[in-house]
Amino acid sequence: MKTRITELFGVEYPIIQGGMIWCSGWKLASAVSNAGGLGLIGSGSMYPGVLKTHIQRCKQATNKPFGVNIPLMYPEIDKHLEVVVEEGVKIIFTSAGNPLKYTSWLKDRGITVVHVVANVKFTKKCEEAGVDAIVAEGFEAGGHNGKEETTTLCLLPLLKDHTTLPIIAAGGIGCGRSMAAAFCLGADGVQVGSRFAASIESSAHEGFKQEIIRAGDGATQLTLKEITPVRVIKNAFFEQIQQSYREGADIEKLKQLLGHGRAKKGMFEGQLSEGELEIGQIAARISEIESAQHIVSSMVLECLDTFKTIHSLTK
Amino acid sequence: MKTRITELFGVEYPIIQGGMIWCSGWKLASAVSNAGGLGLIGSGSMYPGVLKTHIQRCKQATNKPFGVNIPLMYPEIDKHLEVVVEEGVKIIFTSAGNPLKYTSWLKDRGITVVHVVANVKFTKKCEEAGVDAIVAEGFEAGGHNGKEETTTLCLLPLLKDHTTLPIIAAGGIGCGRSMAAAFCLGADGVQVGSRFAASIESSAHEGFKQEIIRAGDGATQLTLKEITPVRVIKNAFFEQIQQSYREGADIEKLKQLLGHGRAKKGMFEGQLSEGELEIGQIAARISEIESAQHIVSSMVLECLDTFKTIHSLTK
Repeated sequence: MKTRITELFGVEYPIIQGGMIWCSGWKLASAVSNAGGLGLIGSGSMYPGVLKTHIQRCKQATNKPFGVNIPLMYPEIDKHLEVVVEEGVKIIFTSAGNPLKYTSWLKDRGITVVHVVANVKFTKKCEEAGVDAIVAEGFEAGGHNGKEETTTLCLLPLLKDHTTLPIIAAGGIGCGRSMAAAFCLGADGVQVGSRFAASIESSAHEGFKQEIIRAGDGATQLTLKEITPVRVIKNAFFEQIQQSYREGADIEKLKQLLGHGRAKKGMFEGQLSEGELEIGQIAARISEIESAQHIVSSMVLECLDTFKTIHSLTK
Repeated sequence: MKTRITELFGVEYPIIQGGMIWCSGWKLASAVSNAGGLGLIGSGSMYPGVLKTHIQRCKQATNKPFGVNIPLMYPEIDKHLEVVVEEGVKIIFTSAGNPLKYTSWLKDRGITVVHVVANVKFTKKCEEAGVDAIVAEGFEAGGHNGKEETTTLCLLPLLKDHTTLPIIAAGGIGCGRSMAAAFCLGADGVQVGSRFAASIESSAHEGFKQEIIRAGDGATQLTLKEITPVRVIKNAFFEQIQQSYREGADIEKLKQLLGHGRAKKGMFEGQLSEGELEIGQIAARISEIESAQHIVSSMVLECLDTFKTIHSLTK
């Protein structure tokens, strides 16, 4: 499979493993890259020193391309940027912020820059900033999300109308069928989060992985839209948020309820009731904890099978 | 294009025009059927006598198959069922209710029955009820919607895992790219609402059609989830609902605010501020008022083009 995305990153398959807090350290990223996709270290839950260690270990574990995801709202963003440059990381995915702020600085240092967007406005900003590609992330994605609630199916053709940049589809993609659908919608590659969050190499707590497997349809919801919209499993903590809404809570009250370290509690420490459990809608179809290698190869095979089936429709 | 859906209905293309209140009378339904798709009269906004007239006119306007959509919550449901049987309608799409209630009664009268679902639970009920096909409708669809908020991209492969019934994809589909994507996801046909709501033959008010054309990304939202979730344009009426939520309104208060005839006001009478304007997320990509014939043929052409492009990806 040859697309603008496999060309841009020099990888075999147009499958990117989403950079996820508490799930995607060097172990997952290197496993995905070794399988022919592009692994990303999720720096959002790491101190700069921890990030440095993960990058170093990732370089030892694979000689294939890999990248780092950096949320631009990260409080020590400058230190993170310093680390990735020092360690010679060649691919950076930025998210949750303005692409105009750091893109040219990164590109001046020979780094390929991809930015995550959920609407037309930020797609235009990405073009202006000179990014190399965008991730178009729909409403069904796990974790932080756009305010417009546009789904991947609607977002892709819309952004395709507005940009010539290569597009990586994200949100709702975890199998070969959805991968094939993304290409129909105009994507040049796909980003997969949830299925890798539940993989063997994910650094998430085993209890969280089991919770992903238990999740059925309707198990997740986008909430805390007044702070930053986030898709989570509807556990006891989520019910507390809902109760607060019913009581007419304001932003301050919601921030207080959220507190600090909720995601770490849930996803890394396995406190399934009190923690924040970020995952996408496709959790409903995840029924096994698999290796990253198996996820990549089964997606590619199913995608190619789907193309064949589709082709026969027109005969 | 030959699929289980073209076979089931005896139509040329696997494109169904969704039955929509205030938009899809005999004029739109017959135009879609004449174009080779399947037109549906939306009975939800009609008195039984009005429905009868629409069916009779539709029979005069086309000799191709067409159907009627019947929301099962309709207060005079028995009269509607009487009308469709008397008039010899051969295809019924039911929605918003339990498929176990009327399916066998309809099938005993030689009618093909399709039911609209948004989750696994009701898909199972459809199998039990003996329906001929299901419409899988995702979160991005306009108008009434499921409580799970599952998007079309996530819903289709999920339902495909749970049923062997033919599946018609709905929600977020209004172009050949999304049509092709739906087939990749396991659909046998697609249902298109919003794009037909803004068509020449739609009976919607001209002002509402223009509002659809003006809508950009983020222009719609799913609201009134405590009553029946409905996707509408964020107009002044929507803002009143939001304000009520902020003030901690209960269901009674919300029902009072909604009142009666809100959708008629907005969609049929063109009261764009005070009316309820039901439309899907794809409104963001609708930029012209086109004929039903053009919509059907351009979707088919774009879909076939997409299949070709996709096929070349694997070479």
